Amino acid sequence: MTDANLAILHIHQLLTMAGPARPRVGAEMNGLGLIADGAVILGDGRIRWVGPSSAVPDDLRRQCDRIVDLAGRPLVVLPGFVDSHAHPAFAGTREEEYELRIRGATYEEIAARGGGILNSARRVAQASREQITANILHYAPLFLAHGTTTIEAKSGYGLSVDGELKLLRAIRDAGAHTPLEMVPTFLGAHAYPAEYRDDHRGYLNLIIHDMLPRVAAEKLAVFCDVFCDRGFFSVAETAEILEAAARFGLRPKIHADELAPFGAAELAARLNAVGADHLEKISPAGIRAMADQRTVAGLLPGTAFNLALEHYPPARALIDGGVPVALATDFNPGSCFTLNMQLILAIACTQMKMSPAEALTAATINGAHALDQGDRLGSLEPGKAADLAVMDCADYRIIPYFFGVNHCVETIKGGRPMNGFAFLAPTADTTGFRSARPASE
Amino acid sequence: MTDANLAILHIHQLLTMAGPARPRVGAEMNGLGLIADGAVILGDGRIRWVGPSSAVPDDLRRQCDRIVDLAGRPLVVLPGFVDSHAHPAFAGTREEEYELRIRGATYEEIAARGGGILNSARRVAQASREQITANILHYAPLFLAHGTTTIEAKSGYGLSVDGELKLLRAIRDAGAHTPLEMVPTFLGAHAYPAEYRDDHRGYLNLIIHDMLPRVAAEKLAVFCDVFCDRGFFSVAETAEILEAAARFGLRPKIHADELAPFGAAELAARLNAVGADHLEKISPAGIRAMADQRTVAGLLPGTAFNLALEHYPPARALIDGGVPVALATDFNPGSCFTLNMQLILAIACTQMKMSPAEALTAATINGAHALDQGDRLGSLEPGKAADLAVMDCADYRIIPYFFGVNHCVETIKGGRPMNGFAFLAPTADTTGFRSARPASE
Repeated sequence: MTDANLAILHIHQLLTMAGPARPRVGAEMNGLGLIADGAVILGDGRIRWVGPSSAVPDDLRRQCDRIVDLAGRPLVVLPGFVDSHAHPAFAGTREEEYELRIRGATYEEIAARGGGILNSARRVAQASREQITANILHYAPLFLAHGTTTIEAKSGYGLSVDGELKLLRAIRDAGAHTPLEMVPTFLGAHAYPAEYRDDHRGYLNLIIHDMLPRVAAEKLAVFCDVFCDRGFFSVAETAEILEAAARFGLRPKIHADELAPFGAAELAARLNAVGADHLEKISPAGIRAMADQRTVAGLLPGTAFNLALEHYPPARALIDGGVPVALATDFNPGSCFTLNMQLILAIACTQMKMSPAEALTAATINGAHALDQGDRLGSLEPGKAADLAVMDCADYRIIPYFFGVNHCVETIKGGRPMNGFAFLAPTADTTGFRSARPASE
Repeated sequence: MTDANLAILHIHQLLTMAGPARPRVGAEMNGLGLIADGAVILGDGRIRWVGPSSAVPDDLRRQCDRIVDLAGRPLVVLPGFVDSHAHPAFAGTREEEYELRIRGATYEEIAARGGGILNSARRVAQASREQITANILHYAPLFLAHGTTTIEAKSGYGLSVDGELKLLRAIRDAGAHTPLEMVPTFLGAHAYPAEYRDDHRGYLNLIIHDMLPRVAAEKLAVFCDVFCDRGFFSVAETAEILEAAARFGLRPKIHADELAPFGAAELAARLNAVGADHLEKISPAGIRAMADQRTVAGLLPGTAFNLALEHYPPARALIDGGVPVALATDFNPGSCFTLNMQLILAIACTQMKMSPAEALTAATINGAHALDQGDRLGSLEPGKAADLAVMDCADYRIIPYFFGVNHCVETIKGGRPMNGFAFLAPTADTTGFRSARPASE
């Protein structure tokens, strides 16, 4: 052992999320692997041991260089959130569009005024790679501060060879300067850029023959994603892009059936995509196809909330139909500008009727599977990454129930506590500016 | 001047909310009194001067003992939020009911299992006054940390002479130990307690002849509130209670028309109530009556969100109909367990189509009027209390647009900065645990 071992003992409520080594479905999504008065031992950035505090092996305890004893504190410890759908690579906020939308402007009207995805694309074109990197690094600490240890990082606001490469390189550059883990996804097929509005073939060729080879050559992305929906990329166009991407070693993901039942979920199942996201308008056939393939459904209820959509994604039909469900923020400056997974849990519970336990499963282990990282992230089991969130509440249900506050007082990424357990300092800050201390009943 | 003066200069975006000395209606609600590069001078706990940084009078500048120069930082400064509807006096959280509700239990089923208001009443009966005080003081710093400087504090979980007095005394006790200002409201008529379920007359007599005289004698409340709705207190019962309360010097407020169009808004107007709150089911006649009397409508969209109600309160119809609208959290352990007014703004904007400026007006100056404190709170004008919130964002619209994070980095109550402007310290915390730093574009 070269690195220090760290034991965290006497955790009031430890959620291990331990279970089968695959995405959780049906009743499995209510399993939390809950240990009352639990302990975790970390070493070399990984989980070494997990179990009841009373059962910590003596030899392991003796090896620990540091023991953080949380006895008597009403804390919940769980795996760091894995936010499997996020667009952190952008340049500039879009609060003007937010206000226009509230005042009644339609998506089309906002687009006609220069808004929407193409607005972000224009700003990315004007920004330097360094500015994009700085923007990502601006938000990365906030993800960590809210308990998220891994996010997906999509391109998609470039929509040109230079733009897409700039975004993916910025994601890679940023990754070297933050403990937040980012899994990069190439989303050149986010929308048709203005100059290809009437030349879809031309943009498909650009993606397949110019972007994909360069993305692959520089190993800039793990996944390839396509916005497959009415007014965006057709099922045939999506299949063509994703099949080409597979030849370059990029696994498929799909923005699916957000605006219309479009057959995108069925396509995701057919292509063995790691996940299909959005799904507000998924058809019963789409649910059956995804259940058969165990394709992870990435639900983004923050977007439905923020856009005040008539319907949220059908979480109950998906779970009850046997589809593994993940929850993510959809963090982006247009349709959903939030990075707080705790609020996503609250929206999922109240608006989609997911139980708190299902929502936590969806935000941790199923999120990890949605990024094809279920073998190393998303649960607290020996050998997995030591990624943990410490929540200042007495019961896991309080995380969504007491909503709109940040319960996270410590995030540990790869065994490294981001906040140095400062919340344990005896000189408590009485102003409440540091932590959201919920009731200790 | 005996106390030190404090000048805050060169604020990127200062929202004074200055305007007519009455609740704002119609287009007035979009007025923010915005000053780009503004300055505020505080002294003796009050606002002494507000205006452009370039126009600070020399003599005033010379009197200042401390100048906090925020020039160049993308910060928004506004009046501290006035949360005009909150139930902070309780004993114990109710996350079990939260989960039952998500799993489909109705209000009646939860009540039958011992849940609801009577659940909280039972817990209050078992708690000591000191425990209630401690519970209030547990949450008070969190209100402040999210930019709220004044809240209403209702009783209503006592439902007995001893219980109601215990809650109101606890609110008074807590007020001596937190800078958070609390305006107490007697809500003995929150629900009929079990033992009076079939004896409404008996409980009305208890309120009118036992509770009200003692509340008034100890000066424990400023307002008297009644839950006037289907299954709770009738219009006639409400009028009887509020007319008795008026004889004891308590001004009326009403929980109105939440479950059904009940005539409660009309009653509020007729009794010259300071406000009527909830109003999910207000009738057109109720809107007209409130507009005629300029009765403040206290909307609680967090409750509609958390309960996933079919309809939010009709904010647009109220504003367009000339009713002054306030926004509040409804903070309580049952139907809406949040204290973050910034999230309430986001819910109001996206779900009720209030503009960001209208929402901010509703959360500051109109909230102050909803507590009959419009002459001293809710706007930054000379002579008013020096209650300010400092938000770490470049534009006020970002407060609701970038939702689910706490933008507040400093709260000033009565001239006293709660956080000592720690966010200005040169050794910035890079973990992001202290502040939500949004984009500085």
